[in-house]
Amino acid sequence: MLRIDLNSDAGEGFGAWKLGCDEDAMPFITSANVACGFHASDPLTMIRTVRLAKAHGVAVGAHPGFHDLVGFGRRAMAASLEEIRADVIYQVGALWGVCRSEGVRMQHVKPHGALYNLAAEDVSVATAIADAIKSVDPELVMVCLANSKMVDGAMNAGLRFVEEAFADRAYTADGTLVSRRVAGAVLEDIDMIAERVWSMIHDGSIASLDGAIVPINAQTICVHGDTPGAVEMIRAIRSRIKAGGVELKAFGK
Amino acid sequence: MLRIDLNSDAGEGFGAWKLGCDEDAMPFITSANVACGFHASDPLTMIRTVRLAKAHGVAVGAHPGFHDLVGFGRRAMAASLEEIRADVIYQVGALWGVCRSEGVRMQHVKPHGALYNLAAEDVSVATAIADAIKSVDPELVMVCLANSKMVDGAMNAGLRFVEEAFADRAYTADGTLVSRRVAGAVLEDIDMIAERVWSMIHDGSIASLDGAIVPINAQTICVHGDTPGAVEMIRAIRSRIKAGGVELKAFGK
Amino acid sequence: MLRIDLNSDAGEGFGAWKLGCDEDAMPFITSANVACGFHASDPLTMIRTVRLAKAHGVAVGAHPGFHDLVGFGRRAMAASLEEIRADVIYQVGALWGVCRSEGVRMQHVKPHGALYNLAAEDVSVATAIADAIKSVDPELVMVCLANSKMVDGAMNAGLRFVEEAFADRAYTADGTLVSRRVAGAVLEDIDMIAERVWSMIHDGSIASLDGAIVPINAQTICVHGDTPGAVEMIRAIRSRIKAGGVELKAFGK
Amino acid sequence: MLRIDLNSDAGEGFGAWKLGCDEDAMPFITSANVACGFHASDPLTMIRTVRLAKAHGVAVGAHPGFHDLVGFGRRAMAASLEEIRADVIYQVGALWGVCRSEGVRMQHVKPHGALYNLAAEDVSVATAIADAIKSVDPELVMVCLANSKMVDGAMNAGLRFVEEAFADRAYTADGTLVSRRVAGAVLEDIDMIAERVWSMIHDGSIASLDGAIVPINAQTICVHGDTPGAVEMIRAIRSRIKAGGVELKAFGK
Repeated sequence: MLRIDLNSDAGEGFGAWKLGCDEDAMPFITSANVACGFHASDPLTMIRTVRLAKAHGVAVGAHPGFHDLVGFGRRAMAASLEEIRADVIYQVGALWGVCRSEGVRMQHVKPHGALYNLAAEDVSVATAIADAIKSVDPELVMVCLANSKMVDGAMNAGLRFVEEAFADRAYTADGTLVSRRVAGAVLEDIDMIAERVWSMIHDGSIASLDGAIVPINAQTICVHGDTPGAVEMIRAIRSRIKAGGVELKAFGK
Repeated sequence: MLRIDLNSDAGEGFGAWKLGCDEDAMPFITSANVACGFHASDPLTMIRTVRLAKAHGVAVGAHPGFHDLVGFGRRAMAASLEEIRADVIYQVGALWGVCRSEGVRMQHVKPHGALYNLAAEDVSVATAIADAIKSVDPELVMVCLANSKMVDGAMNAGLRFVEEAFADRAYTADGTLVSRRVAGAVLEDIDMIAERVWSMIHDGSIASLDGAIVPINAQTICVHGDTPGAVEMIRAIRSRIKAGGVELKAFGK
Repeated sequence: MLRIDLNSDAGEGFGAWKLGCDEDAMPFITSANVACGFHASDPLTMIRTVRLAKAHGVAVGAHPGFHDLVGFGRRAMAASLEEIRADVIYQVGALWGVCRSEGVRMQHVKPHGALYNLAAEDVSVATAIADAIKSVDPELVMVCLANSKMVDGAMNAGLRFVEEAFADRAYTADGTLVSRRVAGAVLEDIDMIAERVWSMIHDGSIASLDGAIVPINAQTICVHGDTPGAVEMIRAIRSRIKAGGVELKAFGK
Repeated sequence: MLRIDLNSDAGEGFGAWKLGCDEDAMPFITSANVACGFHASDPLTMIRTVRLAKAHGVAVGAHPGFHDLVGFGRRAMAASLEEIRADVIYQVGALWGVCRSEGVRMQHVKPHGALYNLAAEDVSVATAIADAIKSVDPELVMVCLANSKMVDGAMNAGLRFVEEAFADRAYTADGTLVSRRVAGAVLEDIDMIAERVWSMIHDGSIASLDGAIVPINAQTICVHGDTPGAVEMIRAIRSRIKAGGVELKAFGK
């Protein structure tokens, strides 16, 4: 039987500031990437987010980013590999503490924002991140952009990984994401997106923006929960893939 | 045979800024309280500090503080108990990640600065801290100011603890520290300090500033490593207590 | 002719995070207290907020707070008077730079959150703040809680000030605010609030929670713009006081 | 008569952490670049630094950097031009507040670290910085790396500028700095450095690492005050250029 995981970022508020619709999205996803205080979140928000995930049976992972709150971790920084490794260890550890205090096992680590993009393109960054994760807990799974250098990094480090695809993004003929700056990069038709996700899981391939059929082997689909519309999209995807006989389950379960 | 632990703060630099003489003090202490990024330190400094402690066979503990880098965690903040609990969980977890990555077992947690002072006086704060520590790892030991509310807090939470005395501080007739603002609060004669530490261990009591004999049951002595003179003091204390037949050993070993 | 100012906090987002309804509230107030990056806001948010205020002819003031983003400046900190003075100078200067770059004259300074509360009760804090403001620009006006120590602080420093009242808060017989923890401290009936503001301006007095008539001499009324309901309240107040012949105008104009 | 300015970074401590030898260097320089809280410094440190500069008759300028305390502003960040502009306005304003409170006129702005390097290579960054400075105060002078894009940026914005040379750095045949990663990039012989500075001022040219004579038109020489050896170097340079009849004076005086 086919199975898939739906992952979404969570806990991306900060202090008095809220972001996203964690309460609305959590019932419909299977894995939550919890911000760790460097690009978003704070200790109390992390605790509440892990508690919420637990209440919904959602698997928890760390979502480490660059230490740039004002830029939400979206600005690349010329950090050394040693600094990146240390930042990941710190953030994964911090969420580990929270998970322990809530009686939850941490499932995975998925880098955030500019750190994610850097790791997808630069195998030395990807390897530094994977090595950091493995040094904290070799049972953790790294969530990698499918067909990217992140996969090579995880393999270099000897770390378990899953590949992820994006529900609402167009792909290039190389099987990577079309830049958001390109017209058509972000899909909006919910039914079409749901159908696309289903065929991606079923066929192991996806149609690129220029019509090529590109192999993609995703064990998890990234969805967003930060707008009411986003939650609608998650529900549509769920309905379509359940109708197609796909089991929805966190990859670590 | 009598035994004692000597603990010192460590890793209290921040980025390009250095503080203390970790390299000089580490050979002479048995437990290091490693700053966790809220009042001082950063991920890379934490890794280097844990590595240094490991190289010297020094036990490692977390030194969580208020999130106030510019004030070095020395300014009391009106944080809620829930916030304090979350901040401790986060910081202990972050150092736990570092310890795991360096193959070191974490021994203890000792609050820093204003958080330490608050916990020594307010049992609800002490209990919140102890509860936070226990929720992350019930094997951790809380370092408590001897004869203070911190001891009650650890007992409330059912957490193991040790009591600590200060080598170079005068005591009140209640067995607590004389405020630094009082003349004579900080001792400076190294030989006298060493003798005083020895008799504290041997007799289980200390002479207060006004001449009373006060019971004190310390399993660890706090020393400072932040000046060359401080390192001299540590060496003098070591010599004196070794000459007196006291074994120097981390309390968790 | 009677006149009054309506002031509201503004620019209290931070990076990707939004807070309040600046766009909705700005058309209806006469003075904006712009956060300066310590409890909220960031340079780009400050620029956009000052630009928005300018577009609506709203006078601009600095809203300095404790350096505590995660606590939104609402947690009292044991900062020294020297530190408070320096923090105010820094924040007022930062907004001054923004005002200059947008061609706007800064009108006032109103402390935020825990710093405001501290200044209202402790004349040494109030004086340190007033002294800081005056040292940057003696033309600036300090917004003080009516009948509080802030007024004494401004007078000690020889700084111009206005007194402010709160539209939706109950008052004690001393003319100060009833604590939010007391039942009835926050008023909710919009028409009653509008009527109350009008009579406060007209009579120079207000009915306290226990029925006493308390003198209050406010040149500005603090309103909130952080919820859609809050904007409704501002509009109701405006209608009522305009109907009563009161001119709405920034106090510095 | 020939004249020159000697500038040095100052106020680069942070909270409890010290850096540099401001007290030792200040008597020997003519312009101080004061950190503004983003890569180093804090409000109280800024006040003390401006006060120290004033006591020694040293001209004061702002030294804005990327908001990266842990990386000391030395890591390039993918900030937008709009963010860079806003960050410079904020930091210049903050120091302006401090200067006003100390009765000092601000003379100049010199970007720090990675922001300086970026501006030296990218004219759009240099122009954004120059435009930010001018928008706050068109009388301010921008300190630019000689022969770099910073000069073009200042000219684009119509802002006054001076060019600076480095006393202890080797130059390429293009008149720019040899990368620190190249052997021979940093000079160490104090007498040779002093002689080199003198001839640079006198001849308006400098010998590059590969022996070419390169025109350089510097109105200020950057020296460092962060080690005892650095202060010795400043003194040697002063002696040599005074002996050569060059007047030492801040460029804005």
